[in-house]
Amino acid sequence: MSLTEVLLIAGTHGNEINAPWLFDQFKEGTTCINRRGLNVSTIIGNPFARQKCLRYIDRDLNRSFSLKLLSSISNQHEYEIKRAKELLNSYGKASQKPVSIVLDFHSTTASMGSSIVIYGRRFADLALAALIQKCLDWPIYLHEGDDSQTGFLVEQWPCGLVIEIGPVAQGVLRNKIINQTMLAIETCLDELEKIKSFNYTFPTEVVIHRHLKSIDFPRDLNGQITAFIDENIDGKDWIPINQGDAIFDDLSGIKLILDQPNLPHKVVPIFINEAAYLEKGIAFSLTTKESWEFKQSWSNSLISLLS
Amino acid sequence: MSLTEVLLIAGTHGNEINAPWLFDQFKEGTTCINRRGLNVSTIIGNPFARQKCLRYIDRDLNRSFSLKLLSSISNQHEYEIKRAKELLNSYGKASQKPVSIVLDFHSTTASMGSSIVIYGRRFADLALAALIQKCLDWPIYLHEGDDSQTGFLVEQWPCGLVIEIGPVAQGVLRNKIINQTMLAIETCLDELEKIKSFNYTFPTEVVIHRHLKSIDFPRDLNGQITAFIDENIDGKDWIPINQGDAIFDDLSGIKLILDQPNLPHKVVPIFINEAAYLEKGIAFSLTTKESWEFKQSWSNSLISLLS
Repeated sequence: MSLTEVLLIAGTHGNEINAPWLFDQFKEGTTCINRRGLNVSTIIGNPFARQKCLRYIDRDLNRSFSLKLLSSISNQHEYEIKRAKELLNSYGKASQKPVSIVLDFHSTTASMGSSIVIYGRRFADLALAALIQKCLDWPIYLHEGDDSQTGFLVEQWPCGLVIEIGPVAQGVLRNKIINQTMLAIETCLDELEKIKSFNYTFPTEVVIHRHLKSIDFPRDLNGQITAFIDENIDGKDWIPINQGDAIFDDLSGIKLILDQPNLPHKVVPIFINEAAYLEKGIAFSLTTKESWEFKQSWSNSLISLLS
Repeated sequence: MSLTEVLLIAGTHGNEINAPWLFDQFKEGTTCINRRGLNVSTIIGNPFARQKCLRYIDRDLNRSFSLKLLSSISNQHEYEIKRAKELLNSYGKASQKPVSIVLDFHSTTASMGSSIVIYGRRFADLALAALIQKCLDWPIYLHEGDDSQTGFLVEQWPCGLVIEIGPVAQGVLRNKIINQTMLAIETCLDELEKIKSFNYTFPTEVVIHRHLKSIDFPRDLNGQITAFIDENIDGKDWIPINQGDAIFDDLSGIKLILDQPNLPHKVVPIFINEAAYLEKGIAFSLTTKESWEFKQSWSNSLISLLS
């Protein structure tokens, strides 16, 4: 049986310190990430930003993998562009041991608990996310159709998921976050090993939180934020809200309500108050919860990647 | 009656964004910080760091007010040293309108709720902190006898307190943090106004959490952290623990216990998992809770400052 190359990445954002700390504990000779049929490597995505406990040095590494940025001459001096190329050279399809599956471990300041993020509807991603959801019952956030956020790391490999664990402040090490990260690693690797040994069971259904739109804070003419997240939704990621519900509040007590005529009446907010999204103009994102029938084409795609 | 100059500072750390946001809402002509007998000004401590959402640019502004640093030639190029001097020139005793009382508004990632920090046992500080505690029942943390942490901003003015509100991740705006900051501002100014109008009542007692020692994470020979805060104390600031209680935990499940023979049997941990203290080698600080009789010399000191 040929070995499948699997890459675990932590510290793609240098101030998300729990998964990198966990990787440091995987001393040489550790067996906890060894699985039959898999060759599992770990790497720190952004080591320089990690050293400085910053999200990034020049630009967000997890938005740096677009072909436009990677080929642009004017961005070549940027640390993250250089780092993105290093990662592609070491683990991409032209490398000596091309990686088939990438798992990218993040944390969030939002009260989201643990979740899986997929970018677009690649069959192998859907299959692997569905397997993890079957084991752990974690929500899956399908990020798609958002031209303002592109160039995600995992999209450069045949199959790749982001694991998001929260809530935790940037630069804070917490037991629960470490434990949930470890649980995600073990579950992903266990499920991949089962496929390698033809001992898998895919679910018949997958629950998806499909991205609809991101909502910015209200701002004045100078771009300054004029209102904060209303208590109605603060800390309440994954809990549905309705059009007309309060979402922002200002100091004078004036509430702003959700009024998005092009969206469904009931929507599910996530990434509420993720600190790093302030500069991206995102107070929270809205999703719609859907149950999808699991397609055999998805499992076929993942299985063939592991064959 | 002569006006007493009071200065409210926010954003001394640029990634503690709630109090600066609140100050921005105090539009010209606002009356909410006006009090009879007081001339209240507001200022952003570290505007450049705020713009970048970083704690600081070159060094922690709230450790930059030591005479040694301010007079050192080799530090003169640092942004925070220049900024410290600007603040002293504008509001210090040699300025046109010397400020008598400074209130410096911070936030913390620790689950400390709202608290008052005083540095050393200056009488006017003790009196003002006691007045706020009388109104709000907030804990007072007396930071003293710690040679590794010096040069705090408020020490440069005749009377000055730090207000700490948490928990909130760096770079996150939250309703509760804003509200508690506003409550602190109003309470402090109300109490100062009462002194100006000879309508004050000091308490007979003050409860102090006196600093004993800060505890660093366990580290290996390379300085890397080898254990995280145990769940026994994580998020449980102000709750007493005993010698022998678990304080750290490593991935193999080995717990490290509190074993500080020179400290009392029962101690009170605070600033547990404050993100900014990671680089300072502080996992949490230990205090001892004490009730002190309120001294007339304290109120005399504060009253004479306002006369």
